Amino acid sequence: MPNIYDSAYELEKAIRESEEFKSLKLAYETVMNNPSAKQMFEDFRDTQMNLQEKQMQGLDITEEELEKARAVVEAVQEHQDISKLMEEEQRLNLAINDISRIITKPLEELYGTTDETN
Amino acid sequence: MPNIYDSAYELEKAIRESEEFKSLKLAYETVMNNPSAKQMFEDFRDTQMNLQEKQMQGLDITEEELEKARAVVEAVQEHQDISKLMEEEQRLNLAINDISRIITKPLEELYGTTDETN
Ligand SMILES: [Ca+2]
Ligand SMILES: [Ca+2]
Repeated sequence: MPNIYDSAYELEKAIRESEEFKSLKLAYETVMNNPSAKQMFEDFRDTQMNLQEKQMQGLDITEEELEKARAVVEAVQEHQDISKLMEEEQRLNLAINDISRIITKPLEELYGTTDETN
Repeated sequence: MPNIYDSAYELEKAIRESEEFKSLKLAYETVMNNPSAKQMFEDFRDTQMNLQEKQMQGLDITEEELEKARAVVEAVQEHQDISKLMEEEQRLNLAINDISRIITKPLEELYGTTDETN
């Protein structure tokens, strides 16, 4: 039986060599190598992060901020390379979520089963 | 090259068959099969969860609640089987954190490297 770390490094290699990761890398580099696309993508990220922070701190979000956020989202959705990048990010995130569910199953079973039988 | 899912399932199997997981399982079952230890462990969990929820909601924690929490922590620390269980939980958590760091490395490199070169 391979140990935990050997298996984790193998999974890391599988992720790195997966079609999903390679497509994401290509999409990311395409955006990063285009200065205006890069700027737009970073504005989008910053805007999202600011809104999230405000929400988490329970601060009010102004109508002006919402308008700005909507405009930035619209701009990135209409940008082919950026929307491709966001699509690829979502695709890899789904795979990572699946992986996370798979490897936490032993723990879930241990705690779950006990709850059921008591 | 094995695909992501094959590798994830192999890692899951490695976790399930690891000494760390088997020790945790044994420690958990030892506590769960002893009604008074089980009750004490569940009180400890409930107390911790209540305090965390209050903190996250920004609610005040009373001196009485703190006293109760301290008493519960002291009780579980003095209980050999429960402190063993908590030790084993911490040990497996460390392994899971290592695994998580290993498998998110490709993504970290992708996003990290780009920041450096721009
Ligand atoms: Ca049980
Ligand atoms: Ca770059």
